[in-house]
Amino acid sequence: MKPDAKAPVASGTLGAEIALRIDELAALSDEPGRLTRLYLGPAHRRAIDLVSEWMRAAGMTVRLDATGTLIGRYEGAAPDAPALLIGSHIDTVRDAGRFDGNLGVITGIAVVGRLHASGRRPSFAVEVVAFGDEEGVRFPSTLGGSRALAGRFEPRLLDEVDAEGVSRRQALERFGCDPAEISAAVRAPASTLGYVEVHIEQGPVLEAEGLPMGVVTAINGASRGSVTVTGISGHAGTMPMQLRRDALAAAAEMIAAIERRGRQVADLVATVGRLEVAGAATNTIPGRVTFSLDIRHPADHQRTAAIRDIESSIKSIAAARGIEVEVTIDHDAPAAPADAGLSERLGRAVAHIGVPVRRLPSGAGHDAMAFGGAIPFAMLFVRCRDGISHNPAEYASPADIDLAARALADFVDRWDREAGQ
Amino acid sequence: MKPDAKAPVASGTLGAEIALRIDELAALSDEPGRLTRLYLGPAHRRAIDLVSEWMRAAGMTVRLDATGTLIGRYEGAAPDAPALLIGSHIDTVRDAGRFDGNLGVITGIAVVGRLHASGRRPSFAVEVVAFGDEEGVRFPSTLGGSRALAGRFEPRLLDEVDAEGVSRRQALERFGCDPAEISAAVRAPASTLGYVEVHIEQGPVLEAEGLPMGVVTAINGASRGSVTVTGISGHAGTMPMQLRRDALAAAAEMIAAIERRGRQVADLVATVGRLEVAGAATNTIPGRVTFSLDIRHPADHQRTAAIRDIESSIKSIAAARGIEVEVTIDHDAPAAPADAGLSERLGRAVAHIGVPVRRLPSGAGHDAMAFGGAIPFAMLFVRCRDGISHNPAEYASPADIDLAARALADFVDRWDREAGQ
Repeated sequence: MKPDAKAPVASGTLGAEIALRIDELAALSDEPGRLTRLYLGPAHRRAIDLVSEWMRAAGMTVRLDATGTLIGRYEGAAPDAPALLIGSHIDTVRDAGRFDGNLGVITGIAVVGRLHASGRRPSFAVEVVAFGDEEGVRFPSTLGGSRALAGRFEPRLLDEVDAEGVSRRQALERFGCDPAEISAAVRAPASTLGYVEVHIEQGPVLEAEGLPMGVVTAINGASRGSVTVTGISGHAGTMPMQLRRDALAAAAEMIAAIERRGRQVADLVATVGRLEVAGAATNTIPGRVTFSLDIRHPADHQRTAAIRDIESSIKSIAAARGIEVEVTIDHDAPAAPADAGLSERLGRAVAHIGVPVRRLPSGAGHDAMAFGGAIPFAMLFVRCRDGISHNPAEYASPADIDLAARALADFVDRWDREAGQ
Repeated sequence: MKPDAKAPVASGTLGAEIALRIDELAALSDEPGRLTRLYLGPAHRRAIDLVSEWMRAAGMTVRLDATGTLIGRYEGAAPDAPALLIGSHIDTVRDAGRFDGNLGVITGIAVVGRLHASGRRPSFAVEVVAFGDEEGVRFPSTLGGSRALAGRFEPRLLDEVDAEGVSRRQALERFGCDPAEISAAVRAPASTLGYVEVHIEQGPVLEAEGLPMGVVTAINGASRGSVTVTGISGHAGTMPMQLRRDALAAAAEMIAAIERRGRQVADLVATVGRLEVAGAATNTIPGRVTFSLDIRHPADHQRTAAIRDIESSIKSIAAARGIEVEVTIDHDAPAAPADAGLSERLGRAVAHIGVPVRRLPSGAGHDAMAFGGAIPFAMLFVRCRDGISHNPAEYASPADIDLAARALADFVDRWDREAGQ
């Protein structure tokens, strides 16, 4: 079942309201004719203004922290109660889709708005957090807002410059943020119950299984690297097969081994995305080939085991062919497991509105990666069409969004009821 | 056993004489500091002058035909006797080695010079033929001289232009050749006994087997083409292995199948020399991959069977992966089998000087390809170092050259003796 653009969703539902706001927010762009909203840019400012308005209308008090993260707070029954954080990001890639990030912020506001409309105050506060530096388009590093929240913002990041030579520090100051106050953005663990994010899946799994949403088990750890295969170049006509040291034939065997290993373990992905043949010509046996590696899994031990096996396969293949090989892993990001308790609560809410609970990893990165245990988190993925994201064709149906918003509302309501017992 | 630059060859031997002349001829270049002698260029003119001098010194009368082929004739016992043609080419690639082509012309002259020195006249004439258009560097087509000899020169070739916009017709006229006379260059079959060429192997087979020379079975037929694999691009993190349509993983499996098929039959070579990934990025599953095919064998039925099997493997692999594939074969040149009788004579000469007779195909092209049965041919390959050719590092030892020259002299002497019986 593919999400259907015409799937009926009653007007007045959360899904219909959220879909309208997604279109409204998508109109705020740095570029005419397409959605591009970079961190601390003019469209980011206008988005903050619009989202602030929505937050206030939902009964929240609003503040902007020193990294440009917008935070709306809906007080609980007791003042200064610890807060459940609901959030996502409102920056985008260039020529973006409308749902990535924005969906989670707008859904959070809709859920709070529902509390506000009925005059309810849960036993905990609810804060909606709109990060502004998730996509990493403007500066070399990313997740500045979530790092600050978790007390992990490194001051050296302030010296990073964008393509125009503007530093993060200057950009923050011009935006009205005081970099000296970033340390004050740290969230004391006791002041939060945790962080929940609704986000489009950005992959095809839910669509393939006919499910409107799923609960994230972890944000995948990722390793990236490159392999250089050095054989001996030769004439395609005069060099017999048995005397060849063909770097491309060797690389092909290695790629097959990488794919095979990737298929061995659920949730493991192993990709060769780039491959270059040096001095390539139709009548020349390739002497040197370089290709990339990208290996991800929600559990670090599975990822490191896969890398170990892949390296060992690559080396055996090279040895058997009398070919040189060099494997370099130059990037290793550990997995960020979702909090078991929060995810369990989220799963119960999903089940309660009648949707089978599918647990799946997140292959893409998210703000919660920066929390590193300081703030427990859970994520709810919403089915998106054809797995497409970072593209204007990105789409999630109002019906699916409505289900996700209802699950999030149920999650808040139940937790409040349990806390009150 | 590798050919040894210091292998002893007595001065006064054919090998020593030929090696000296190879160096002398290599000094004639269109470019300072490296050997580049293009068809109908200034160095080609100087080479013709020098080779003509050597031919006359060996008792030959010399003429230049209408395509710029230099022909020296040593008359047999009877005037107008049919001629044994011994030849190769004196044009080179850019930054060439010294042996490719030049070796065969100089060896032919040395063998005739030996007859002349002893005052012998065989029952047949011997002509040394120095083609000038073998490498195909200057004009789009090649083998103009040998095509003309075989009556296969197509007049449209005269309109081809080089990189400076000079046509073949203009270049011939400026060189003093009359394009209108090309049809007169045709060699009446009854006027020849056949064509024999000594050439470096340009491959590693003889060196690998420790043999100084070998007899060519055929000039390989060759097919070239390309394969375009179209899968579905996707995010390396969010697209599970089992939902992928990875064009590069598919191409890798195809390349393995191509190599496997290439290894199945002796003398078959199957090469993928180019491979490009469209829109390649480390974190993107390749959606489209294009790669080249180059398949050669001395027997056409083996080559066409290999192409058929390879196409069928490629299509099965694509079908099993739910991926689109297009295979295009855009170039097919049939094999040119050496004449059995001439090759048998050549093999007996090789055996007579004590070298085991190794028969091997030619993976590279040669002038004799253009003869197409009109002129029977045989070729003698000389071991070259590391299989290197079309490169200044190209090398054949004086000792190996001496053995080849002795074999060629023996071939001429025996044939004359047999003809006289």
